[in-house]
Amino acid sequence: MLTTNPYDDDKLREECGVFGVSATEGAAALVALGLHALQHRGQEAAGITTFDGANFHTHRAMGHVAGNFDRDDVIRALPGTVACGHVRYSTTGETALRNVQPLYAELSTGGFAIAHNGNISNAMRLRRELVRRGSIFQSTSDTETIIHLVATSNYRTLLDRFIDALKQIEGAYSLIVMTPEGMIACRDPLGIRPLVMGKLGDAVIFASETVALDVVGATFVRAIEPGELVIVQGAEIRSIRPFAPMAARPCIFEWVYFSRPDSIVGDHSIYSVRKAIGAQLAIESPVEADLVIPVPDSGTPAAIGYAQQSGIPFELGIIRSHYVGRTFISPGDKVRHLGVKLKHNANRALIKGKRVILVDDSIVRGTTSLKIVEMMREAGAAEVHMRIASPPTRHSCFYGVDTPEREKLLAAKLDLGGMTGFIHADSLNFISIDGLYKALGEAKRADVRPKYCDACFTGDYPTTLTDHDEGAEVDQFAMLAERVI
Amino acid sequence: MLTTNPYDDDKLREECGVFGVSATEGAAALVALGLHALQHRGQEAAGITTFDGANFHTHRAMGHVAGNFDRDDVIRALPGTVACGHVRYSTTGETALRNVQPLYAELSTGGFAIAHNGNISNAMRLRRELVRRGSIFQSTSDTETIIHLVATSNYRTLLDRFIDALKQIEGAYSLIVMTPEGMIACRDPLGIRPLVMGKLGDAVIFASETVALDVVGATFVRAIEPGELVIVQGAEIRSIRPFAPMAARPCIFEWVYFSRPDSIVGDHSIYSVRKAIGAQLAIESPVEADLVIPVPDSGTPAAIGYAQQSGIPFELGIIRSHYVGRTFISPGDKVRHLGVKLKHNANRALIKGKRVILVDDSIVRGTTSLKIVEMMREAGAAEVHMRIASPPTRHSCFYGVDTPEREKLLAAKLDLGGMTGFIHADSLNFISIDGLYKALGEAKRADVRPKYCDACFTGDYPTTLTDHDEGAEVDQFAMLAERVI
Amino acid sequence: MLTTNPYDDDKLREECGVFGVSATEGAAALVALGLHALQHRGQEAAGITTFDGANFHTHRAMGHVAGNFDRDDVIRALPGTVACGHVRYSTTGETALRNVQPLYAELSTGGFAIAHNGNISNAMRLRRELVRRGSIFQSTSDTETIIHLVATSNYRTLLDRFIDALKQIEGAYSLIVMTPEGMIACRDPLGIRPLVMGKLGDAVIFASETVALDVVGATFVRAIEPGELVIVQGAEIRSIRPFAPMAARPCIFEWVYFSRPDSIVGDHSIYSVRKAIGAQLAIESPVEADLVIPVPDSGTPAAIGYAQQSGIPFELGIIRSHYVGRTFISPGDKVRHLGVKLKHNANRALIKGKRVILVDDSIVRGTTSLKIVEMMREAGAAEVHMRIASPPTRHSCFYGVDTPEREKLLAAKLDLGGMTGFIHADSLNFISIDGLYKALGEAKRADVRPKYCDACFTGDYPTTLTDHDEGAEVDQFAMLAERVI
Amino acid sequence: MLTTNPYDDDKLREECGVFGVSATEGAAALVALGLHALQHRGQEAAGITTFDGANFHTHRAMGHVAGNFDRDDVIRALPGTVACGHVRYSTTGETALRNVQPLYAELSTGGFAIAHNGNISNAMRLRRELVRRGSIFQSTSDTETIIHLVATSNYRTLLDRFIDALKQIEGAYSLIVMTPEGMIACRDPLGIRPLVMGKLGDAVIFASETVALDVVGATFVRAIEPGELVIVQGAEIRSIRPFAPMAARPCIFEWVYFSRPDSIVGDHSIYSVRKAIGAQLAIESPVEADLVIPVPDSGTPAAIGYAQQSGIPFELGIIRSHYVGRTFISPGDKVRHLGVKLKHNANRALIKGKRVILVDDSIVRGTTSLKIVEMMREAGAAEVHMRIASPPTRHSCFYGVDTPEREKLLAAKLDLGGMTGFIHADSLNFISIDGLYKALGEAKRADVRPKYCDACFTGDYPTTLTDHDEGAEVDQFAMLAERVI
Repeated sequence: MLTTNPYDDDKLREECGVFGVSATEGAAALVALGLHALQHRGQEAAGITTFDGANFHTHRAMGHVAGNFDRDDVIRALPGTVACGHVRYSTTGETALRNVQPLYAELSTGGFAIAHNGNISNAMRLRRELVRRGSIFQSTSDTETIIHLVATSNYRTLLDRFIDALKQIEGAYSLIVMTPEGMIACRDPLGIRPLVMGKLGDAVIFASETVALDVVGATFVRAIEPGELVIVQGAEIRSIRPFAPMAARPCIFEWVYFSRPDSIVGDHSIYSVRKAIGAQLAIESPVEADLVIPVPDSGTPAAIGYAQQSGIPFELGIIRSHYVGRTFISPGDKVRHLGVKLKHNANRALIKGKRVILVDDSIVRGTTSLKIVEMMREAGAAEVHMRIASPPTRHSCFYGVDTPEREKLLAAKLDLGGMTGFIHADSLNFISIDGLYKALGEAKRADVRPKYCDACFTGDYPTTLTDHDEGAEVDQFAMLAERVI
Repeated sequence: MLTTNPYDDDKLREECGVFGVSATEGAAALVALGLHALQHRGQEAAGITTFDGANFHTHRAMGHVAGNFDRDDVIRALPGTVACGHVRYSTTGETALRNVQPLYAELSTGGFAIAHNGNISNAMRLRRELVRRGSIFQSTSDTETIIHLVATSNYRTLLDRFIDALKQIEGAYSLIVMTPEGMIACRDPLGIRPLVMGKLGDAVIFASETVALDVVGATFVRAIEPGELVIVQGAEIRSIRPFAPMAARPCIFEWVYFSRPDSIVGDHSIYSVRKAIGAQLAIESPVEADLVIPVPDSGTPAAIGYAQQSGIPFELGIIRSHYVGRTFISPGDKVRHLGVKLKHNANRALIKGKRVILVDDSIVRGTTSLKIVEMMREAGAAEVHMRIASPPTRHSCFYGVDTPEREKLLAAKLDLGGMTGFIHADSLNFISIDGLYKALGEAKRADVRPKYCDACFTGDYPTTLTDHDEGAEVDQFAMLAERVI
Repeated sequence: MLTTNPYDDDKLREECGVFGVSATEGAAALVALGLHALQHRGQEAAGITTFDGANFHTHRAMGHVAGNFDRDDVIRALPGTVACGHVRYSTTGETALRNVQPLYAELSTGGFAIAHNGNISNAMRLRRELVRRGSIFQSTSDTETIIHLVATSNYRTLLDRFIDALKQIEGAYSLIVMTPEGMIACRDPLGIRPLVMGKLGDAVIFASETVALDVVGATFVRAIEPGELVIVQGAEIRSIRPFAPMAARPCIFEWVYFSRPDSIVGDHSIYSVRKAIGAQLAIESPVEADLVIPVPDSGTPAAIGYAQQSGIPFELGIIRSHYVGRTFISPGDKVRHLGVKLKHNANRALIKGKRVILVDDSIVRGTTSLKIVEMMREAGAAEVHMRIASPPTRHSCFYGVDTPEREKLLAAKLDLGGMTGFIHADSLNFISIDGLYKALGEAKRADVRPKYCDACFTGDYPTTLTDHDEGAEVDQFAMLAERVI
Repeated sequence: MLTTNPYDDDKLREECGVFGVSATEGAAALVALGLHALQHRGQEAAGITTFDGANFHTHRAMGHVAGNFDRDDVIRALPGTVACGHVRYSTTGETALRNVQPLYAELSTGGFAIAHNGNISNAMRLRRELVRRGSIFQSTSDTETIIHLVATSNYRTLLDRFIDALKQIEGAYSLIVMTPEGMIACRDPLGIRPLVMGKLGDAVIFASETVALDVVGATFVRAIEPGELVIVQGAEIRSIRPFAPMAARPCIFEWVYFSRPDSIVGDHSIYSVRKAIGAQLAIESPVEADLVIPVPDSGTPAAIGYAQQSGIPFELGIIRSHYVGRTFISPGDKVRHLGVKLKHNANRALIKGKRVILVDDSIVRGTTSLKIVEMMREAGAAEVHMRIASPPTRHSCFYGVDTPEREKLLAAKLDLGGMTGFIHADSLNFISIDGLYKALGEAKRADVRPKYCDACFTGDYPTTLTDHDEGAEVDQFAMLAERVI
């Protein structure tokens, strides 16, 4: 309720960012900085766990990193040279402090902390079996399933137990684990969620995006590979690959929207890919107009690409407030319908009488697109053309992204004509799926084993979906649990 | 830091009070009132869990019941007709919200909430074994051990599992348990901690003391018997006794200090027993003096008894502030040594030139007694005689009372002469152990099977003390656990 | 809303306590301790102002001294060797931080801080004239009138201006004033409100009651005399008497209820006067009974006096909770009517079948007396006799005490028989007005120039009441003012 | 400490924004929205005063509008159909709640609330005289001087008193005043600060910028003219001009930086003027390069203008975090020097090996420019050229803008070469003063009576500066005042 979200409410929401550092003084402060740089990946809650050689120390808080983890007293209460942290949205598990990661447990092998980006698509089935055998869950998070699998594994060493657990779970996971022996970073066999490694002096750093390395002054070393575990114990770094090798399927939406423009994911600069998408969109869907206007801020790189390709001038036709917080709770209808203008206001003097091309990254429900098109018309635009830098979003994500149910996705309900009508635009076009692959350097999407997970556009899910197939909705976790107020 | 304690810091601290109600509208509000009446049994934290037929709802908070559980929004968020609650000091388990009871878990049999007054003296050994088998503890509380024993029991029904768990634990426990089927109240086979049953209309109430029944307007039915389980399911009330019968040993300190003067414990009015102790003390240890002065407020009933027996007038020679909160953090030594006067101030005009008898309930470290004797002298008392309404406290309690380590107990270090000197009194006397039993209606303390647990005075512990004998200090829980800030 | 009041709601409320100290290191910490000892005189808000030789520093807070002024950061932010403070109820002026004293203003003569116990009975008329001439009031407090009179005085020195102001005001005032030159303590010509002087080493202390001197370890020097100004400048102490001498009329209710039992007011120990009242009451209104029971805590000394005089045993028949905070907001009628028991509970085992004499200090509205009588009956009392240690309270106070409007005073509406019926007692008696003077060492109340202000009992007001006579209700201040939320 | 400022710390700070509305239901909610749209003009504190026909209601709070004035309980406590509000930085007057506007006073003519954008340059002299005559100031704000002048004026009606007050003050002021009779909006004779009028249905609105009209859905009517008073009483709107006419001198920095790009000030769209400045800069100071990069966000419009004029591509070379709060307090030097990257991060993949032109709106101290140039170099830029969309800032502002002392202004200390060296750029150029006037449609700056106040660039102050000439620093207000904690 107190969290502020400058991004649009009508976007897919990345659920998590993780950051870990091994072997450096003031580890908690470094993790706080790293999480701050990853704040766009999860704005609902944050947590940091440190290990000081004897004890683990954790602080979790609802809200942003800034305001919670930049306080001297908090950082001082998190001593140690090894630390990991997490920012989150609440996809799986109700929103309560006990679901905020890193999760922690006392195992017979010692303390165990875990931070997870992704979603386990058979967590519900595993949980039911674990509870039947006497395990007690403290959260409604799918991540806790991993901990109980480790705790009850028949293997002896922590590493063997951890691999045993990983082999039982399906879905998407980039994990950072802390034990008294050291830190383990790993990525699921398909590499659906990103995870990179960097160095800052002798310290090893793991992070969801390279921008977090930049911000803390670290050097980018390489991405963790799909199916790889990197184990850091003091000065020693080991890599093991316990899974059968398979073709990777990283999430293509990282380039479309999730990652920050100044990050590099899989050798591609996010900013340059987004500009390339914009340029491709200008080739696929040209239109005669006077201005190219980005829907700020996520549409800006694609709009620059579109403008450069088309030769139509790039202009700031929508001004975004820097002070957008939670929605104003305004008494009286007169005031309530003004809500959207708190975030965006038309640059009237510029727009009046002009034919404008709006460029946005995606359409989810379509409600915000409608408001922005109408805002352009009220400001006197002669024509309003919308261009979208991703294909139509037609399918739910089961890998850690907060997608609305399918029936709320505009593109799952309407065809292009219907969508154009719905948002009141003069024309609407999406980039083609092949065009999107082109912007990423491919000739086109391969029918068999495409290079990316694009299930939200195509419905082609790269894993089985046990809980979903069993009708066990993720939300049922909440059904089981105690309500803590 | 925010909790206020109008009682003296130099007292033994009762660790807990419990209160449960079954089958009444607005159960949470009733529990809040009941806990408020039991606030003297634990002032550090409080919690309430309710069941609304479908979900459990819990709120836990550091601090007093008033200020936390008298808020409309809190009570409204605790719907249901069955509820239990808990007030606590932190004997076992670090002070953190996750240790505040009722504890809750999702078992394969459904939700399970538990509130516990007492201490399990083999919790550490049980915990180690449970962790070895894969159980993950969420708190450092000994009470959680019971939950894991239930979760991993091989019996089928919840009731059988619960009895199975109870048979593995040793120590003191008065428990209130809530499941979707109903409420269970039980007391350990020795009945060390108190637990009573009352009725309010059709509702069944369980509480640590009768005063909580009075305050909510309920009628006192009877005490739960040692080793008894009372099971309430809707309108049905059943009683079972799964343990081999043995002679009860209720804690004698309830009459000395813990219970409120307006409670009735085991057929004895607390107030009348305390007056009888005072009268017996006047018989055992008479002294010529002008005034009998209670050390407020816990010494007052015994002082009245002493005065009535001796014929020496009862007078308020020490005035207690009603506004004592946490200690003033005062910069500068000039101010710091004034601390004690914030709580107690001598009634100078009364005391000047008089021979005074101070009556207090007990001496733990002796530090407050020293300050009060000196306060009398500064106010001009001619002689200061101290009379204590309990025998010397020489041994630690392992049944849920926060006793200092033995080396800090004044009576464990010094003989009567030494103690008299330490507190600067002209004379000091304690009631004899036989005198204490006399005040409770016995001829004397029976050498074999005495009627009460008086281990803090005699060292005669009625149970084995597994963790203590294994050198596993209760504090080691804290050693294992994550520090959550 | 957050303030806690362990005293009964159905009492007259003293409005203020003041405390000042001159020339000592850590002055603010000393004032905090002093105010804590005076907390019973005003529990709604507190404030401290210090002077460090260059700047004045002030902190004001709603709520108690403890929790606000025992914080290191607060005390550190109040540097200086001269300080004064104030605790208050809100008699005059709405309850808002800007009404919390000490009030402060920048005058042409420099900074000016003032703390006031009492009430100015022509404040409204003076305020209207000041506003007409261009003065702007920052509070709705009557005390601010004094500041504006000083600011607009035609005299040159601060002292002359201050005396000029005092000569224009009527009513009751004990004042502590701080300027860059030093501290001034003064008392109105009738000495209606108390004010005493003490010493702690070289430091001079002013306080409303001697108990505050005790608590900070200071020695009682003497009372400030009615009409006297004591001026402290560095080491120099001067006394001036700018008013024509007149017979003093100190408030008699200080002995009845307001002052703490361990204070000494006007050569009389409060405790001994209250016991004497109780004894006189036993002589005037004897009754055959088994027990004398104080209504805790304010009725206790009179109950002891009554018991000693009558030979009937003094017993604790009502147990007061130590944890009474703000009233429980309880949903549902079942719970609401239980409210009174949160504060007081009958000691059933003691009372059952007994004829009891309840002793209380006063009756205001009578609502609490009714509840307590009924509580005794529910607990099984055979007879309930109420004895009141003051005459019937029939008139409003205009000198700084929060009296309800006359029509809410039980004794203004009903005769003795009516009152006895209203509270459901078997008998009710008040001490006579002459009996009250007797307990204070007089033969009887003098018809002309009685020694005390007893207007609340007799309606004999010692000053003119300009605002009241002009129909200008004190509450009209609130009518004029801005509502600050 | 809790306020967040997404703009750069190294900017001039506008001190205030004002917003008023007359005759509409839910006036407070509308003012809250309007203030939110003006948040960029003052982020330290905000306040709203309403009038409900009988009482005035005020809420003031440190921090942003969102989080303080979007709460239902706050808006409900501000009833009435007339309301005004204020957002502020603390130029004059220490930062404390009592300095937060609207200020309010009870005058003999009734309630009087005032919100002020600007600064009174003879406030200190007027205050001294007022205090000498007995006025007591409640704040250290220069605005309070106006209230006391009104209160002590010898004229009879409120309007005459207000004009009498205005004639005594010098400096810059756009004011919104509320009295029981209605609302007055006015602007100083030179019109230094902006103020516009709009309509929303029958309601009249006054605001610092047109963007606030847009956001609440109102229509822009016209600017209040320099020296004009607009009086709204119910449905009646009157305009009077009590001052001798003179040539206007609006602040030119509104177009450079203060106003939002979507506002229209004095017939000029802010966005188009900024683009024109960028284009003029490209003409005056061309350079061969690969990319034009805005320093986000204030440099963006000028960068677009520069890019369009020069034909060099506009690219996002610096990514700004959306989550910038207060500076991270980071233990250890390793972390502290990373601070700037929390706000801005280089888009490395784009910049590497490129010659870049950075466009920013202004340079104050130069410290941020240095960090940004170095960030470009670290990211691999081949050349870094800085272009500034305003002339060098060499002089302090005395009209309500928070300028550092002259000795901290980079351009007051160094010539162009020195500044280029200081920020480590390959080249640095500012737009000329004539170029700036050109972008505003003038041929050049007129030597006599230039059309704008450009004193920060030229030192040509359009008014006398009484306090400054008398050596009475604005900060001396703080010297006089009580420190309230």
